[in-house]
This record gives sequence, structure tokens and C-alpha cells, in this order.
Amino acid sequence: MSPLLLLCCLGQGDPALSTIDRPNIVLIVADDLGFGDLSCYGHPSIKTPHIDGMAAQGMKFTQFTVAGDDDAASRASLLTGLYPIDTGLVPPLKNDVRGVLPSGAVTIAEILKERDYVSGCFGRWYLGTAPKELATGQGFEEYVGYPPDFRPSKSSSDEQPLVFVEGTKTVERSFPQDDVNQQLTESALRFIVESKAKPFFVYLAFTDPKHPFEVPSHYRGTSLRGHYGDCVTSIDNDVGLLLGRLREIGIAEQTLVIFMSDNGPDLDQKFNGGSAGLLRGGKHSINEGGFRVPCIAWWPGTIKPSTIWERPVSALDLLPTFAGLAGAALPKGTDYPGSSLAPVLSGQIESGTLNDPSSTSPAFFYYQRNKAYAVRQGPWKLCLLPDEEPQLYQVDFDPGEKHSVADEYPAIVKHLRTLIEERRARDDHTLQTK
Amino acid sequence: MSPLLLLCCLGQGDPALSTIDRPNIVLIVADDLGFGDLSCYGHPSIKTPHIDGMAAQGMKFTQFTVAGDDDAASRASLLTGLYPIDTGLVPPLKNDVRGVLPSGAVTIAEILKERDYVSGCFGRWYLGTAPKELATGQGFEEYVGYPPDFRPSKSSSDEQPLVFVEGTKTVERSFPQDDVNQQLTESALRFIVESKAKPFFVYLAFTDPKHPFEVPSHYRGTSLRGHYGDCVTSIDNDVGLLLGRLREIGIAEQTLVIFMSDNGPDLDQKFNGGSAGLLRGGKHSINEGGFRVPCIAWWPGTIKPSTIWERPVSALDLLPTFAGLAGAALPKGTDYPGSSLAPVLSGQIESGTLNDPSSTSPAFFYYQRNKAYAVRQGPWKLCLLPDEEPQLYQVDFDPGEKHSVADEYPAIVKHLRTLIEERRARDDHTLQTK
Repeated sequence: MSPLLLLCCLGQGDPALSTIDRPNIVLIVADDLGFGDLSCYGHPSIKTPHIDGMAAQGMKFTQFTVAGDDDAASRASLLTGLYPIDTGLVPPLKNDVRGVLPSGAVTIAEILKERDYVSGCFGRWYLGTAPKELATGQGFEEYVGYPPDFRPSKSSSDEQPLVFVEGTKTVERSFPQDDVNQQLTESALRFIVESKAKPFFVYLAFTDPKHPFEVPSHYRGTSLRGHYGDCVTSIDNDVGLLLGRLREIGIAEQTLVIFMSDNGPDLDQKFNGGSAGLLRGGKHSINEGGFRVPCIAWWPGTIKPSTIWERPVSALDLLPTFAGLAGAALPKGTDYPGSSLAPVLSGQIESGTLNDPSSTSPAFFYYQRNKAYAVRQGPWKLCLLPDEEPQLYQVDFDPGEKHSVADEYPAIVKHLRTLIEERRARDDHTLQTK
Repeated sequence: MSPLLLLCCLGQGDPALSTIDRPNIVLIVADDLGFGDLSCYGHPSIKTPHIDGMAAQGMKFTQFTVAGDDDAASRASLLTGLYPIDTGLVPPLKNDVRGVLPSGAVTIAEILKERDYVSGCFGRWYLGTAPKELATGQGFEEYVGYPPDFRPSKSSSDEQPLVFVEGTKTVERSFPQDDVNQQLTESALRFIVESKAKPFFVYLAFTDPKHPFEVPSHYRGTSLRGHYGDCVTSIDNDVGLLLGRLREIGIAEQTLVIFMSDNGPDLDQKFNGGSAGLLRGGKHSINEGGFRVPCIAWWPGTIKPSTIWERPVSALDLLPTFAGLAGAALPKGTDYPGSSLAPVLSGQIESGTLNDPSSTSPAFFYYQRNKAYAVRQGPWKLCLLPDEEPQLYQVDFDPGEKHSVADEYPAIVKHLRTLIEERRARDDHTLQTK
């Protein structure tokens, strides 16, 4: 962990960083949304005015990387601040990546509870299906989501009740099935209004634009990008509703909102999947297209408007960030790979001061299931796939990973290979002892 | 030409469109800048705050296409409103694409002169090298550029005088060679200040970020994208200088500024070339990466801020646009393929009203040298390359041209093939009779 970033991720929040005591936190996660799928990330035919506005009023990350190659792995990692293999999500994951997050795993909601936060999870849980495995078993006071494997109907005229899980109970609600995201957003908004006397943590986990997705009827045809683009536009509108409500009830300046995706686009879906923009690869690939996703942070009064943060940041940094802002202690005995972004959000550190190409900058590992196949450190990324020559990319210069420079920099290849091999040895030990 | 767009491209400007009589026009053209190379078009490690601000205050085009596959062809087309083959730029172009624009070609500067505009060209002319072939032979009152084939020195410490052509004379000026873009910008600004009593047209044609490019010393290391990104950042700063000066001298609301590139990125240059973002191909390719470029229009008080124009537009539309705004007549006997964008800029037409997938929407042809190899009409694009099966793309849905749908839509393939064949027959006739 960088000493510079260690400042406020342990113990009480650093009062210099923010005058807000225990800010509310809203974490919005889209599903399989690609790096290139928002207009503020350059998509030519999807319009996302509310999310673009969120970036204009806040901070847009251009090198934000998730820690898992698939939905469940990424979300387990996000909520626990650990690489998937260390979350205990039923290793070794084999063909079925959907596992159960062990009840002993410490989630953001559990950490924030110590500082009197109330937490609500709305949408896709995907980390266990039995009643005790749902969000309410992992530190959340409230959960509204779907039954296992439930998908909304694909028929726009279908007015059958939508089946929800509330807490651990299955209920039916009467509204068109294509309004599912907006209903989840409304549930989150109700929770926010009810909870605003306390600090709160909201995890709003959309099922979209993952294929097969549902487009509310009034969004159809709003995008040149077809149903996929229409679906992203509908999510954009839900984000706008949420930000607007925070302003209306007067708590925008006490609330940090993060919007992100859980992994790269599912390119196998062709027109029904997204785009990674200029990045190479998509979901399940260790190239940037699989792991680097859109991420925007919004916190009026604390984050300077229109900031672009172009240094590497990862989803592993969110748990230490939230804990730091809340003044919550991290559990003892766990070595968290991430660092608090609080000094980044508050402008204490400027993007320019973090350009550290040296071997002391933190390493980030790219996994497929439980095996590390690539590592990023500073500007460098080494890909070590089976049956392929090692590929070294200078990811800052070459975000599309088009030109391997392994032959030019053998010492860097050697150094990064050592890091991966050490990590693999540690992971083998983890797998054998669990 | 679409009847909807015919409104104001002939005769006097339509007073409903703008209350500005004969607005000033500034056309800024970057060289080989790719569709993905600005931060407002999604580049993750190039920062272009001034151009992004221009988009935030104006209109960003997401489907703006140039009409030539190379520098000279594209610029000849831009200045005459005709496809390269019809500009008379020494057809047939063979190995040397740099030709001479015939003195009989009618340029934007010549058309605007009728309405008392004064015109200045600053930077790269590239359409002839003899004194009478330079910009001052084509309607421009002033020209400041380079001698034929001159490139600034690559040495940052080189304080030798920079060689310029002013009008038709070669002169030396004493400043560091790496300041060339800024010096051109300053020349344009001087011209603007001197000309502000009259309506003016400025064509500011940067040589950068074309390889080999020059990065001013104070921009080096400002971008994670290396020298290429630093160079784009330096252009961004020049754009910021220009917009700031227009505001300072109080003529921003009387001035339309367009920023664009002359063609797609030169991918052969690897790290020293740009990126087409999610588009396929680069310079010389008939795929979108070769022809679709960044384009932003800025006109405070007329263009609504933060507008995104996502319908197809081309560089061929600029001459009719400028003529329409100036109230200048187009030369009789010439069939211009473009249409005025005045109603688009003024908000008379909204993006949503132009979604016309029918065969009545205008066709746009993609040329390599003097041969049409692809055609776009509405959402459809047919690519007809030698020795390849016809590829049909639904470019709106699939801007990366990843999935040919030729087998699913044989009638559309047939219709578009007819359009290309008619165009080729016409072009063969042009080549034989010139």
C-alpha cells in the first residue's frame, strides 16, 4: 500500500479531508456495462446525459479496474475489498462462477455498521440464494432484489406482477416487468428518505444492461445503439432520479455516490452486448476491456467538478475508502490490497503527483477464476497466458494493448513475472488450505 | 440533398436561423487526429480540457465524416465542398496524393468573398507549392504556413529561426521551432483582431499531431499518452487561446468555430499515431476509423450548450453551411453533395427528427484515391472491396463494424451496390473527360 494513500484508511477519518462526518455512501453498479458504453466515455450513439452530468459535477476515473473477471467474483471482491480468491467465495470456483459468500466474510455494510450506518441492498445480489445467504445475512438491514435466477419477462405488454425478494421473503408487486430498474431505484430512494437521519450505505445493483435485458417501453428507440443503448439510457435516467432526489431532500453534500460496472462488456452477445471503446477484449479477458470499466464519483462540495482521474485505481480501493470516510476500523489480521481514495476525492492529492513508474507503486493482479494471469504496476502490464509468449504493455501509452514491448524491456518482464509467480504460490496455498 | 436541409443553403441566410448577420467563421483542422484521441471522445489518458469545454459550450458531432482518405484529398474536399475526384486535384491521383488544387476550383474563401468576408489561412496548405498555387491564389487574403515539405526541427534545444511562408514569400522568424502551432495560432489571432470590423473566415490548419510531430517543451510529460498525447494537449491549449481571445475582444457570439481532423489516425505509427476509439481501421481505411473524426462546433448564443449531434454529417456539409450563414450564393452549375447545417446549429432541427433509415436519406461515399469502395445511407453501410465479399454494417448499432449483416438484408445490399456502381460509372466518366 502506498504510504501516501495510507493517510486515512485506518481509524478515525482525517478531518482535514472533509468536514462531513460519516458521509452517506451510494454505490451504483451496472452489469456488464463496457468501458466505452457511456457518452462521457466516448460512445458515439448512446446518450447518457445524467451520468455525463455526474462526471461534470464530479470525478471521472479513466483507469478504474474491477478485481474479478465475472459478475459474482467482481461483486464479492467489491463488497469485501479482497481479491476473489481471498473472499472465500467457494474456492475453487469451477464451471459455476456463482458461489456463496461465506457468512464470515466482512462486507462494507458490516464495517460501516460499527459507525452506526444503516445499509440497504437493492437489485442483484448474486452471492448466495438461500435466505441466510442473502444481503440481510451480510450486514444489510434491507434487501430488495430478485429470486434466484429470476429474469423479468421479455414481453413489453406483460403486465403480470413482478416477483421480488424483500429481505428473505418472496413477494409479488404489480407493475410492468420492464420497469424493474426504476422500481429498484424507487426502493433505494424510499430507503434513503427513511434513513436520512442516520448515515446510510446504499448498494444499488442493477441487473442491466446484462443480456438478456429489459428496456422500459418509453425508452425504446431513444438510442441509435438499439435496445442495448436504450437500456443504458434507462439506467442513466435512474441515476438522474437518484441524484435529483438527493439534492431535493438536501443531503447531496453529505453523500458520496459512485457509479461503476461490475466487469467488461459481454462481446459474445454482439449487438446485445456492450463495447470496451478503444480497449482490447471484453468480459473474461485479462486485457483491459475485461477489467477496466467506467467509474464516476459524485460528491458536491467535496469533489471538484469535472475532475478526470487518470491514474490506476481499483474496486479494491472502495472498501478502505468507505471505511476511512466513516472513521471505521478495518478488521485486524486482514491485509487489504487496496488503499483509501479519500485524499483523491477531496483533492488533497492531484492526479499528477501519482505518476510513479517505479517498482514501489502498488501491483494489481488480473485473475481468470482463481488464477492470476496478468499484473499491472505503474505504467506496465505483463500478461502471462498459457501457451503464449509473455506480453508486456505500456498501458498508459498503449491502452489498447496493441504493441507488446516485452523484447525491449526484459528486466521489467522478469520483475513482473516474479510478482505473478509469488502471487500464484500464495494463491495455491490458499486453495490447498481452504 | 434532403429538402429539410435545403432551407438556407442558397441565397440569403434565413433570418429565423440566427440573428447574426454574416457571422465570422473559424475552421480549425488537426492532422491525423483520430476519433478516439480527445478526452471528450473517450480517450483515457489524453486530457483536452479546452476542446472538451468547447463541446460543453457547443455541439459535439459523433458521426462526422471527412470526404477524403488522405490529407490533401480531405482538405481539397473540405475547401470546395466536393468529393476529391470532383475537386480537380490532379486526377487521377497516383502514387503522389499531394496534388495541386486547380485555380478554377471554387473555395469557401472565394464564395464568402462575395459577401465581403476577408479570409486568412494559417498552417498547412498542402494543395500546391508554387506561389500562385498557395492559399492566396485561392481566395485567401493572407497565408502564413510552411515552405513545401518543411518540417520543424525535432530537437527541443534548436533555437534556429523557423522558416515560414507569408503570402508567397519565404521568411525566417526567431522562436523555438517547437512553438510552431502556437505561432500559427498567434498569427490567426492577429488576423482576427485586425479583421474584426469585417466578417472574416479563418482556416487554421495545424500540422499536428501528424507524425513526425513536435511537442513544445513545456507540454512534455503532461500526458500519460506520451509525446502523442502531449502534442494533442498542446493543440488543445491553442484552441483554448483562440476561444479565449474571441471572448476577450467581444466577438464570441458573432463567431462560429469548428474543430475537426482531416482524416483518421495513422495506425502505422504505433505509439506516435492516434486511436480511432471503438471504430475499426484508421487512415486510408474505408472503415469508420479512417473517415469518421472528432468534430465540435462552438457558437455562444446560437448553439445550445452540451448538444450531442449523433446523426451522420460530413465535411461536405461545411461549404453549404458557411455559404448559407453568410447569405452567399453557391456557384451555378455545380451539384454540391452536402447540405447546410445551419438549422442543426441553431437548434431548428433536433437530432431525433433525422432518424431516417429510408432510401431517401442522402448517400455518402467512401473513397480510396479516386474510387468509391463504400457507401453509407441512413443506418446502413456497404463495403465493396476488391476480392472481398460485400460487407453490410448497421453503423448506428455497430459503429465498430464488427458484424456484417449482408446475409440478412440482401435487398439493402442490392440497393447500395447499385448506388456505388452508379457513382463509379459517373467517376469513370469524370476521369476520362478531365
